[in-house]
Amino acid sequence: MSIAVDLHRSLLRAAPVRAALPPLVVNVGVIGPGKVGTAFLHQLRHAAPRLLRECRLELRLRAVSDSRHMWLDCDDEALNGRMGGAQTWRPAALDEFAAYVAGPHGEAAVLADCTASDAVADHYAGWLTAGIHVVTPNKRAASGCLDRWHAIARASDASGARLHYEGTVGAGLPVVQTLRDLIDTGDELTAVEGMLSGTLAWLFNRFDGSIPFSQLVREAHDLGYTEPDPRDDLSGMDVARKLVILAREAGLPLSLDDVAVNSLVPAALAGLAREDFMEVLPAMDAPMAELLARAQAAGGVLRHVARLDRDGASVGVQVLERGHAFAHGQLTDNVVRFATRRYCDNALVVQGPGAGPEVTAAAVFTDLLRVAGAMGVKRCAC
Amino acid sequence: MSIAVDLHRSLLRAAPVRAALPPLVVNVGVIGPGKVGTAFLHQLRHAAPRLLRECRLELRLRAVSDSRHMWLDCDDEALNGRMGGAQTWRPAALDEFAAYVAGPHGEAAVLADCTASDAVADHYAGWLTAGIHVVTPNKRAASGCLDRWHAIARASDASGARLHYEGTVGAGLPVVQTLRDLIDTGDELTAVEGMLSGTLAWLFNRFDGSIPFSQLVREAHDLGYTEPDPRDDLSGMDVARKLVILAREAGLPLSLDDVAVNSLVPAALAGLAREDFMEVLPAMDAPMAELLARAQAAGGVLRHVARLDRDGASVGVQVLERGHAFAHGQLTDNVVRFATRRYCDNALVVQGPGAGPEVTAAAVFTDLLRVAGAMGVKRCAC
Repeated sequence: MSIAVDLHRSLLRAAPVRAALPPLVVNVGVIGPGKVGTAFLHQLRHAAPRLLRECRLELRLRAVSDSRHMWLDCDDEALNGRMGGAQTWRPAALDEFAAYVAGPHGEAAVLADCTASDAVADHYAGWLTAGIHVVTPNKRAASGCLDRWHAIARASDASGARLHYEGTVGAGLPVVQTLRDLIDTGDELTAVEGMLSGTLAWLFNRFDGSIPFSQLVREAHDLGYTEPDPRDDLSGMDVARKLVILAREAGLPLSLDDVAVNSLVPAALAGLAREDFMEVLPAMDAPMAELLARAQAAGGVLRHVARLDRDGASVGVQVLERGHAFAHGQLTDNVVRFATRRYCDNALVVQGPGAGPEVTAAAVFTDLLRVAGAMGVKRCAC
Repeated sequence: MSIAVDLHRSLLRAAPVRAALPPLVVNVGVIGPGKVGTAFLHQLRHAAPRLLRECRLELRLRAVSDSRHMWLDCDDEALNGRMGGAQTWRPAALDEFAAYVAGPHGEAAVLADCTASDAVADHYAGWLTAGIHVVTPNKRAASGCLDRWHAIARASDASGARLHYEGTVGAGLPVVQTLRDLIDTGDELTAVEGMLSGTLAWLFNRFDGSIPFSQLVREAHDLGYTEPDPRDDLSGMDVARKLVILAREAGLPLSLDDVAVNSLVPAALAGLAREDFMEVLPAMDAPMAELLARAQAAGGVLRHVARLDRDGASVGVQVLERGHAFAHGQLTDNVVRFATRRYCDNALVVQGPGAGPEVTAAAVFTDLLRVAGAMGVKRCAC
């Protein structure tokens, strides 16, 4: 018998044309129906019919929980963000909530943690061990203590359940997955450089000396661009968390303590109550004006930059040349530049709005679809 | 019995802690061991040990084929790009090749089409029907005739086998998947704007009037930035193909004929033999100089731009303001800007080197890992 005939037989054996499959059912639970959580519920409701029709993916919202309430068997009202319908008052018992989302029949289950809570992140390892997937823009687990992070990894390895966290860096921008793909295909990271805070990008895009820095901070605060306490942005700690997440993604077991963070908040103002800090904000103006004057004297601009390379990880204000790519940002744009062995002359750059409920929720949704994709749900145009 | 106890029982039922799984074996066949194919083989060889160790994914190179030879059961030499070892001369029978890659035991199989061939794309539907996945930077299927494209989609739907083609636009830049994620999470595309040709980006980044356009084309040709016949770049058809691919990804069934392509090649030079065209290249200088003068008079710059919006799809040279994001490109950078309902004030931008064997091969590799991911291979840092 010829080799050709053998091969033809193999082709026939390899051809199990499958009948149209029933939809994959994925139970979904949402923790933290704040701005991001509400946007996620809204997106879920609107995209679900198309996903069922075109991708044979049936997303079933089972329950929603905030820090004091749980809503089980949510109806359309709840999905609509109004949280009416079957409201059930119960103590905040998140493991019971998770079990309820998983359901009694062992369907696939995904919890969307839309909080910024360390206490919620403490549950991840247990949920993953129980086979429940977690998707989240919450930075606490991926940038928190390494012991917990490793326990989460072990739980995921053991059960096969996934933790995805694209929304932790750059919100909906494709940052974490892009780095993952570079590493997994054998590229080597030489440096990551970024403007990872929309708030700080906005402040330094505007800060040209014509308006005192404190006034810009107040304006950003009033526009809702800053955290309730602007020091949470100005300290640079939130950016440092994002840098830790990218470092770990690249295989470097960094902790927050390893990042050299140059806070914008003068030490004397760090300990004040929030209201008092807002009162004395103008105390920042003189040092900031001096920084700006030095930058302008050198023909450069001030930008808040995060950097990870062989010398370590750092976060703080830098003087950049006017021709630098970061000098041309707009509004609250984030920018991430990956320099790698392959992307050595020019970096791979991802840029765009890196904050806001809608785009952050979209990152959570993308992570949810990645979990579904790992269960075989098809998401191709062809 | 309390609800709490019920829920705890559910949690226990939902906790099937799996033992460490054996690796997933994926057979790989490579068609077209040219520059991209060779780079892909190289990347495969180097990344395979880590993927086996960390992701429990065993990638087995089964065979390599060019238009006249097939190498079956490739050894390390072949992987090394030298194609020594078990060389087997056979007629180019790609379906037999595919069956050989699939193997007799029904392992998962992926074919990497690293050609730019229409004839190879004609086989996709058959391979997908046979359950064999295809990954490719070949633009022919995704931008070619809609009948074939729909047949490919039906084959993929029926068998569950996937076609991925991230490398068709922007090489290794995350473009196709990013658009997919936007659409699948319910965002709506309002416009895509891009510089999708590294060659044309390089030419217009350099073209400031100090050097005649023809001389820059010759320089790009000598540097290997252009196709052997520079008209393949200058005509804009390659860019038009990329725009068609993005349009289809967004759900618009566009064909090449639907794109208004403004070729840079004067009609009188389009029909010449390649050598003759290279001789009369300076005939492009006067019209190009005039275009540039008009742009400069308007205070703008010339850029080769692809655009898709409600008014249709177009490709050609445009005058842009100096402040436009495309005015600050470097070298052969590609840029893609997605304007969507969510990304309305500022676009989501992906930028970086969008051509070259290494980064194109990395896109093929990323697609291969997506196929493996859909079979459950875990690729998380945690």
